[in-house]
Amino acid sequence: MGRKKQIIIIGGGFAGLNAAKSLRKADADVTIIDRLNHHLFQPLLYQIAAAALSPANIASPLREVLRSQKNAYVVMKDVVSINKEGRKVTASDGTSYDYDYLIVAPGASHAYFGHDEWEKFAPGLKTIEDAITIREKILTAFENAEVCPDPELEKAFMRFVIVGGGPTGVELAGAIAEIATKSLSKDFRHINPAQSEILLIEGCSQVLPSYPKKLADSAHKDLEKLGVKVMTDTFVTDIKENGIYIGEKFIPTATIIWAAGNQASPLLKTLDAALDKQGRVIVGKDLTIPDYPDIFVIGDAAHVLNSKGEILPGIAPVAIQQGRYVAKIILKGSEPLKRKPFSYFDKGMMATIGSGKAVAAMGKIQISGFFAWLAWGLIHIFYLIGFQNRTFVLLHWFYLYLVGTRQVRLITRFENLKDKRQ
Amino acid sequence: MGRKKQIIIIGGGFAGLNAAKSLRKADADVTIIDRLNHHLFQPLLYQIAAAALSPANIASPLREVLRSQKNAYVVMKDVVSINKEGRKVTASDGTSYDYDYLIVAPGASHAYFGHDEWEKFAPGLKTIEDAITIREKILTAFENAEVCPDPELEKAFMRFVIVGGGPTGVELAGAIAEIATKSLSKDFRHINPAQSEILLIEGCSQVLPSYPKKLADSAHKDLEKLGVKVMTDTFVTDIKENGIYIGEKFIPTATIIWAAGNQASPLLKTLDAALDKQGRVIVGKDLTIPDYPDIFVIGDAAHVLNSKGEILPGIAPVAIQQGRYVAKIILKGSEPLKRKPFSYFDKGMMATIGSGKAVAAMGKIQISGFFAWLAWGLIHIFYLIGFQNRTFVLLHWFYLYLVGTRQVRLITRFENLKDKRQ
Repeated sequence: MGRKKQIIIIGGGFAGLNAAKSLRKADADVTIIDRLNHHLFQPLLYQIAAAALSPANIASPLREVLRSQKNAYVVMKDVVSINKEGRKVTASDGTSYDYDYLIVAPGASHAYFGHDEWEKFAPGLKTIEDAITIREKILTAFENAEVCPDPELEKAFMRFVIVGGGPTGVELAGAIAEIATKSLSKDFRHINPAQSEILLIEGCSQVLPSYPKKLADSAHKDLEKLGVKVMTDTFVTDIKENGIYIGEKFIPTATIIWAAGNQASPLLKTLDAALDKQGRVIVGKDLTIPDYPDIFVIGDAAHVLNSKGEILPGIAPVAIQQGRYVAKIILKGSEPLKRKPFSYFDKGMMATIGSGKAVAAMGKIQISGFFAWLAWGLIHIFYLIGFQNRTFVLLHWFYLYLVGTRQVRLITRFENLKDKRQ
Repeated sequence: MGRKKQIIIIGGGFAGLNAAKSLRKADADVTIIDRLNHHLFQPLLYQIAAAALSPANIASPLREVLRSQKNAYVVMKDVVSINKEGRKVTASDGTSYDYDYLIVAPGASHAYFGHDEWEKFAPGLKTIEDAITIREKILTAFENAEVCPDPELEKAFMRFVIVGGGPTGVELAGAIAEIATKSLSKDFRHINPAQSEILLIEGCSQVLPSYPKKLADSAHKDLEKLGVKVMTDTFVTDIKENGIYIGEKFIPTATIIWAAGNQASPLLKTLDAALDKQGRVIVGKDLTIPDYPDIFVIGDAAHVLNSKGEILPGIAPVAIQQGRYVAKIILKGSEPLKRKPFSYFDKGMMATIGSGKAVAAMGKIQISGFFAWLAWGLIHIFYLIGFQNRTFVLLHWFYLYLVGTRQVRLITRFENLKDKRQ
């Protein structure tokens, strides 16, 4: 019995998990290494921050997803380096894993344009823990406003600033507006949550910068209808614990959420390959790095151009297609020169702005409003992993949109909050 | 317009919340002060630790529960002292609240019999954060066992020790046994979770010490059928990071859960009243402290005797009845000497041992097995707050008991775990 080929996949996100699943017929051991135990459906992560869904609704244990795939192994470890010459990766506990094929899909994290000190005051949204932190920040701000004796400070507690007008920023701003005007409207005695001020700050001249202008304008209008103040062409110059600077102007606030910049995983530096400004690996047409046809980099970690010469965005459909593409190459065992180049089939993109409103661009079709929102809901439910998650998300949405309650309005971390309140 | 009477309630647990709700017709301001924003249905907390339910399923924001009660106010603060002479309570941020009536219901926390250093290695189960910590410890132990090269260490990872054989300990032991033998049975490639060793350590001569011997024996047998090793008359002498001492004997394990001792809130010390060994206030027949007929202490914070001279247990029915009793006295405005003494109407007690098994004692009726479990499920669903929580819990149970999956198998806190794994 010969030694089985070893395929190592770093990261259980959309890219890594889809590669693993597409390798189910490979005559090889397929090992996914991730530092957490679950696959996260990131497109709905903002709904955890917005107290609409529970973490378990959009996360599935990798082991459970791959349970019946006999050649799949799951390892919960943190890979800290890749040794191209030795053909192995090493985890933080010192364990090494040899590979024949390596699929690198560690994703990206938020970046603060060289101002890492801002992170403490303006958390980003990438993991479940991030989402819970943001949820508790929002809910705690209302609680603090309710008992605040100083009217100016009360205003600061009821001001929410979101930095970054991409899909995450837009969806969060819409959700916070709905929390204030709908979910909490009758729950306080001293404050009126509907008087909250929600600012969405974007450096470009439109929100959703990568969307067609018509849709961006539509989203802009819908946000304003919800009460969000949209500030385009605006740059943050500094972030402090109690507020944010726009040029010289200081805006006091207790809640700042960062949805502005991404930086690919620092693990990629150990690959010793060319990186772009965001730390993504510049890969070839077959998604490998130069001279190493057995090392693939995919998902948010990869810098890939489409046929028009634009960089592919860090969204789920790109990651999924790349995962499947790489699996196909490995299954075929094609020689590097004979590999068909990766090409992205653009299914479009969509973002919601509160309940009942969304924008969607699919090829030449651009829609906005209720039907875009319905399409958004159906597509997200469809792509969720597991029948049970679908059941629970649907039920949560039913209660949210029809009955009007947010199920998950919990502040659970007393120890974390204590320091800030004292 | 005269100043309204101020009723301050410290704590939004079963005791405090039921007092507040029963005061809905009081011509007074009723203010609940709690350091977190939600009421927690503690009898099902172990199911969060056991990855069966999400936190939001058994927790409801106090504001939402009291939304339509016009005279009710909710304040999220941490009360740190009570001034009996000045008739006010003070929160950690320095704010004071005057009261005409004070209801003290801050609950209890776990206690380590003078060994506070054990807490780090053997977390207890009182809050949602505690439950998530325990869930992550259990799931991480299996993950670590799966990748462990040392067979002895692997055994230690697959050994789970629960200290304390009361209802919480029994229910947790049963749930962990089911996680190992059912939920995870097909998810690992190197280990067989069914070979896990689950130890339940109890100092008394029977598990469920406060239950009739017949039921305790039945629970004992059911636990053993599930694969739990029950050790009665056994005392823990020391707890270390990597194991537990029983006398001189060291048992290596990565997961120790503390379900043994309770200590009432340290806030009670500021009352300057007589406390029992567990720090509970020894109250009079009307649940007030001597010489202060306007200060009531209820729930897990109170030391109250029943007609047989036994201390009432720290369970939900006692807290609920005390909350309602105190509200009635305040509503009537009865003079201290004319108050009817509190008497507990004992509806019985029940505990589950895995799915399909439970024990219940209701007066002279003692049942065990499937029908006790059905009764347990119905009663818990009935007492849950909110139709939505009931819907979601039922659906989770449906998937757990009929389909066999645990929805909430998440390890989310990479930063917390990292240190321990390196």
